[in-house]
Amino acid sequence: MGLLSEGLTQILIPVAALVGIGFALLQWFIVSRVRVSYDSGDANGYNDRLIEEEDGANNLEVTIKCAEIQNAISVGATSFLFTEYKYLTIFMGVFGGIIFLFLGSVNGFSTKSEPCTYNTGNICKPALANAIFTTIAFLLGAITSVLSGFLGMKIATYANARTTLEARKGVGKAFITAFRSGSVMGFLLAANGLLVLYVSINLFKLYYGDDWEGLYESITGYGLGGSSMALFGRVGGGIYTKAADVGADLVGKVEQNIPEDDPRNPAVIADNVGDNVGDIAGMGSDLFGSYAESTCAALFVASISSFGIGHDYSAMSYPLIISSMGIVVCLVTTLFATDLFEIKNVSEIEPSLKRQLLISTILMTVGIAVVTFFALPSEFTLFNFGTDKAVKNWHLFFCVSIGLWAGLAIGYTTEYYTSNAYSPVQDVADSCRTGAATNVIFGLALGYKSVIIPIFAIAIAIYVSFSFAAMYGIAVAALGMLSTIATGLAIDAYGPISDNAGGIAEMAGLSHEIRERTDALDAAGNTTAAIGKGFAIGSAALVSLALFGAYVSRAGIETVDVLTPKVFIGLIVGAMLPYWFSAMTMKSVGSAALKMVEEVRRQFKSIPGLLEGTAKPDYATCVKISTDASLREMIPPGALVLLTPLIAGTFFGVATLAGVLAGSLVSGVQVAISASNTGGAWDNAKKYIEAGVSDHAKALGPKGSDAHKAAVIGDTIGDPLKDTSGPSLNILIKLMAVESLVFAPFFATHGGLLFKLL
Amino acid sequence: MGLLSEGLTQILIPVAALVGIGFALLQWFIVSRVRVSYDSGDANGYNDRLIEEEDGANNLEVTIKCAEIQNAISVGATSFLFTEYKYLTIFMGVFGGIIFLFLGSVNGFSTKSEPCTYNTGNICKPALANAIFTTIAFLLGAITSVLSGFLGMKIATYANARTTLEARKGVGKAFITAFRSGSVMGFLLAANGLLVLYVSINLFKLYYGDDWEGLYESITGYGLGGSSMALFGRVGGGIYTKAADVGADLVGKVEQNIPEDDPRNPAVIADNVGDNVGDIAGMGSDLFGSYAESTCAALFVASISSFGIGHDYSAMSYPLIISSMGIVVCLVTTLFATDLFEIKNVSEIEPSLKRQLLISTILMTVGIAVVTFFALPSEFTLFNFGTDKAVKNWHLFFCVSIGLWAGLAIGYTTEYYTSNAYSPVQDVADSCRTGAATNVIFGLALGYKSVIIPIFAIAIAIYVSFSFAAMYGIAVAALGMLSTIATGLAIDAYGPISDNAGGIAEMAGLSHEIRERTDALDAAGNTTAAIGKGFAIGSAALVSLALFGAYVSRAGIETVDVLTPKVFIGLIVGAMLPYWFSAMTMKSVGSAALKMVEEVRRQFKSIPGLLEGTAKPDYATCVKISTDASLREMIPPGALVLLTPLIAGTFFGVATLAGVLAGSLVSGVQVAISASNTGGAWDNAKKYIEAGVSDHAKALGPKGSDAHKAAVIGDTIGDPLKDTSGPSLNILIKLMAVESLVFAPFFATHGGLLFKLL
Repeated sequence: MGLLSEGLTQILIPVAALVGIGFALLQWFIVSRVRVSYDSGDANGYNDRLIEEEDGANNLEVTIKCAEIQNAISVGATSFLFTEYKYLTIFMGVFGGIIFLFLGSVNGFSTKSEPCTYNTGNICKPALANAIFTTIAFLLGAITSVLSGFLGMKIATYANARTTLEARKGVGKAFITAFRSGSVMGFLLAANGLLVLYVSINLFKLYYGDDWEGLYESITGYGLGGSSMALFGRVGGGIYTKAADVGADLVGKVEQNIPEDDPRNPAVIADNVGDNVGDIAGMGSDLFGSYAESTCAALFVASISSFGIGHDYSAMSYPLIISSMGIVVCLVTTLFATDLFEIKNVSEIEPSLKRQLLISTILMTVGIAVVTFFALPSEFTLFNFGTDKAVKNWHLFFCVSIGLWAGLAIGYTTEYYTSNAYSPVQDVADSCRTGAATNVIFGLALGYKSVIIPIFAIAIAIYVSFSFAAMYGIAVAALGMLSTIATGLAIDAYGPISDNAGGIAEMAGLSHEIRERTDALDAAGNTTAAIGKGFAIGSAALVSLALFGAYVSRAGIETVDVLTPKVFIGLIVGAMLPYWFSAMTMKSVGSAALKMVEEVRRQFKSIPGLLEGTAKPDYATCVKISTDASLREMIPPGALVLLTPLIAGTFFGVATLAGVLAGSLVSGVQVAISASNTGGAWDNAKKYIEAGVSDHAKALGPKGSDAHKAAVIGDTIGDPLKDTSGPSLNILIKLMAVESLVFAPFFATHGGLLFKLL
Repeated sequence: MGLLSEGLTQILIPVAALVGIGFALLQWFIVSRVRVSYDSGDANGYNDRLIEEEDGANNLEVTIKCAEIQNAISVGATSFLFTEYKYLTIFMGVFGGIIFLFLGSVNGFSTKSEPCTYNTGNICKPALANAIFTTIAFLLGAITSVLSGFLGMKIATYANARTTLEARKGVGKAFITAFRSGSVMGFLLAANGLLVLYVSINLFKLYYGDDWEGLYESITGYGLGGSSMALFGRVGGGIYTKAADVGADLVGKVEQNIPEDDPRNPAVIADNVGDNVGDIAGMGSDLFGSYAESTCAALFVASISSFGIGHDYSAMSYPLIISSMGIVVCLVTTLFATDLFEIKNVSEIEPSLKRQLLISTILMTVGIAVVTFFALPSEFTLFNFGTDKAVKNWHLFFCVSIGLWAGLAIGYTTEYYTSNAYSPVQDVADSCRTGAATNVIFGLALGYKSVIIPIFAIAIAIYVSFSFAAMYGIAVAALGMLSTIATGLAIDAYGPISDNAGGIAEMAGLSHEIRERTDALDAAGNTTAAIGKGFAIGSAALVSLALFGAYVSRAGIETVDVLTPKVFIGLIVGAMLPYWFSAMTMKSVGSAALKMVEEVRRQFKSIPGLLEGTAKPDYATCVKISTDASLREMIPPGALVLLTPLIAGTFFGVATLAGVLAGSLVSGVQVAISASNTGGAWDNAKKYIEAGVSDHAKALGPKGSDAHKAAVIGDTIGDPLKDTSGPSLNILIKLMAVESLVFAPFFATHGGLLFKLL
């Protein structure tokens, strides 16, 4: 037994979660002190706190205008999410039913207790209980995921205009507002995820008692619920935002030659709403899903190891304790950005965000050492596909840490390839001299190249953690990468908030100088968004592998031998799925964007005075196009991901499904990383030319030059790559794995129909 | 024993090869009757055979002009290839030395005979003999590969102007000339490859005698030689042709608004030379490599099966007999295109080429049945990773046939996605309405989607052939797909010949009507080139898997279990390699194209009268830029491919290397297919708009419209994808597999240094 008693564990975990929630509320409160109000009678406080640098920036009209725009965005985003959730509720019901039926049928809906699978000799709860509790866990995971996305969207649409208003006081103030708001989301999600999982385990335990095998098997449903919502959130949100973005840019910037986010552009509100439903709500659900899945995978693998069999509660809770420590570490880390250092000019933004990653990683390494020393016994055994593996506690310290540091390596690599402070993006910008074609060729090459280091980082993390602690090692390595999720999410959410802030500045007619500040925030946000996606993908790779291992254990497979036809066809078809999926999502964005273009063109033609700014565009129709397209188009890719494991498992059996999971994992990671980074690089190459901070950049610019036009084309192509296809792919690989894990008993019992018939 | 005696086998194979060579020479002779000559005194025969449709098309000046241009292209291509071969000779020497040293060191360069590995109890030749003969086989394969590419280039540069001249008589005559010339290449390659291999085996046998294990192990060097030359041919040729093509288009079409292939464009000769060194010589080497490797893989696997152990020469020669039958079948098939049907108008070109595929597949299915019945005993056993597998001869019939038909499925799918007669390409063309960005998004989505059916076809072929006859089944399935290689190559080579013919027509100033005919030939050529690439990739997948299986057998591995850390890290890193490789090649093309653009711009600026057509451009400098770039830039990707197996095997051992091979195979196939098809679709979307044959196409056109400009950008981006990265990737996967097979004894004995140290 470790040094940490069960009682103390039971206290520490919920306390850490509550501290996280408290900290998030505190940040929210601080942000809320920036007053945005219509009500001119209200003492909105801006008079005594805003330091104007320009005439007119401080008048009431600006505040009111910002408030109006913020309100429009918030209403749009809320209404979209509610519509989306309506469909998702139906899905939850149907899929919950499927889970119940499939798992219940494993043992013919028998209510009799059965001998346990691993801890042989003991008696476990019936498969029917497993079916019921897995379904409940699924629903809990789904609801928590939806809640995470929704809360994130709420704070983001609450913070965007505030960031704009603060930008009047200087870039530092604006940065802190955006970052604080991001951290509200980060801490709420991390703490919420932990708390719900902790409470669920304890409630499930009331029924399961000593049957930990059954308990942690059922809990895997939580991960499935989280990720399936994330899939629709990412895909639906991604299509929404990029249809609007691409449509707005193609007519606004390219044809009508009006600036980005210009209020005359009918698609501009849809574009800003999209940032919140795609990049915020979608991403929130996604990372929550990764977190939930890696925890579930670790718990499941642990439950069939000596922790579970010996009923060592503290050691079993190791994954939850790591997350608790993560919240504390991130809390301290956040103070470095918000209170200990102050950003004074634009060039300090990116280093400050990078510092966040580094600080949290260093502190967390110490945190992991502490947690590992106290929570784990010095020696124990882990289940390793049929054999027992002896492990020491410091082995696990290395497993978690290597995941954490691999995350940092991926983050820094991503930054290098997508920030316009370094040569790769500058080379892409330079290639715009000869037009859009070379820009695209160089951008694609950059994306392909950016895969190399992350893959080596993942491979090393896998090798080390696998060698030390088999599949449990992989699962906790994934948790290590996600342990600083609160900081990661804060950095990530900061991006779309800044993007929106820029949009509001433009629409509210704020001065060029303020727009420059929000643009600088946004450029850093593009890079951090790419970093966030890098984390999401890297952790997804580890999580999927851990889930894959758990699936293999649960399905009773002993080896996944590539040199058997069943496995190999799974492998090659699995490697194809990311392409199929990307084809669907890219085409969806393309088609929806075409419709958006036609509508925007129609409005410019048919509404007199629109281009002159004397008439208002019809924003609502554009919002409707995005909404309809995303809700309709998210179904086929969603079906592909959710049905593949069911079809492969039911008709081709557990071996082929294992191949599919391995194939989609190793192929999907590459497609996802390259897509995200290519898109991020194009976006920042464009911003590099626009900002014109170096001689080289000035020679390529200014806005409207041929090189800039070529850069805009690259940026537009990158939109669906980096915000729709790329980030959805990590959900594809995770979700298929967790779904296979949940359905494993069914496939093991009834699967492989086709081969049985032949 | 089968019905076919050893003596008859010894006669049939060389006779088939000689028939193939004879048929090729006959076709060459027929093509040569179209006279192209400078010498006005020569009775060049055009007077009595050319039927003029327009004034002036038949005058001597045109012929002379065509002859001059053809000569310039031929001289350029020959000189490039000779320069390339100079470097390749050095490489052959060095790599031959490495093979000798690595394989010789397996048993400490001992000259003593050893007990056999599989046929235990018997005595086999020493490892040193294996090292020597493998090196010799490597050199033979390399030389045959180089020869294949060179001969292909020679006939192509011999036929291009003749096709132009024949286009004056009508599209049918031009088609037949181009197609006949393609078939010269197809038959020469197929017959040559077969003959050299047949002779080598018989010569090696003089030394090896009864030691068939050693004999067929050494023969694998032939495949390695063929593929390593193909790698440099494809990559070097690909960079050469696309640097010139992209450079020529970016300045000529986009900036100066002059037509494609305009003689005023300084890069035009380099562009036309490029078609011959990249698409002809590179592709010839590539398909020869596939053919050599699949034969070697099949022979190696057979040698350790009951055929080999029982010394059944006819059954052992089954792979060679299939190829012999393939030559006969393709000969009959060719007559359908050249003699039995006549093309009367443009719309019949593509169906005629498609018919070739169908006819050859149907005839070959019968051929396979005959060969299988006569050459194989009705029952025999195959080696299946340590166990014996009982197989019946009709099982092998299914294995070969399914490979053949999977090839047809891939070919037809590729045609559907890249021909502008169908909706996918038309949709891409349609998306040009909203500019280059949507064109690129739709094109990428099309490429991703086009992967689905080929992957299922490959998966089914693998499953069936694997289940029936283990790795031998896969190897003969690959051979089945390649059995109609002569027809496949003829169709494939037809494309660049037509492309060149169009270029010559433009440069020689032939009328618009004639140019339209060559354009139609060329558009069909784009599709057939994509089909050819589809075949190359599909067969590469099967070949690589067969080689992979042979490697695993030779390295003494029993299972390749994904759930071991060593294998999994290999798998994920292997899946990354196609991206790394593509990043290199895309960037090389991009950089070389930038240089080309600068040079072309410089010439337009500094040479007075160039744009007006009164001064001649400096073609030679552009040729030099392409040559230098391709020779310099082919080294890093070449090193990546050749060093990876050596590093992985030596430092990480046979298991990790097995993972790398499986990963690169399943990932590379997807990247390659999507890249080829995306590029082909963009090219034909542009041609669709230019040709304007439907109302829809007319609405998008004409040349110079905004939609057309967007299409040109897509076409330019597609160039390196479809002609450099995509087709090189199939060599990547094959070459790493065959190299691993050749070096397997070394890795098995001395490999895995790093893990041994840890």
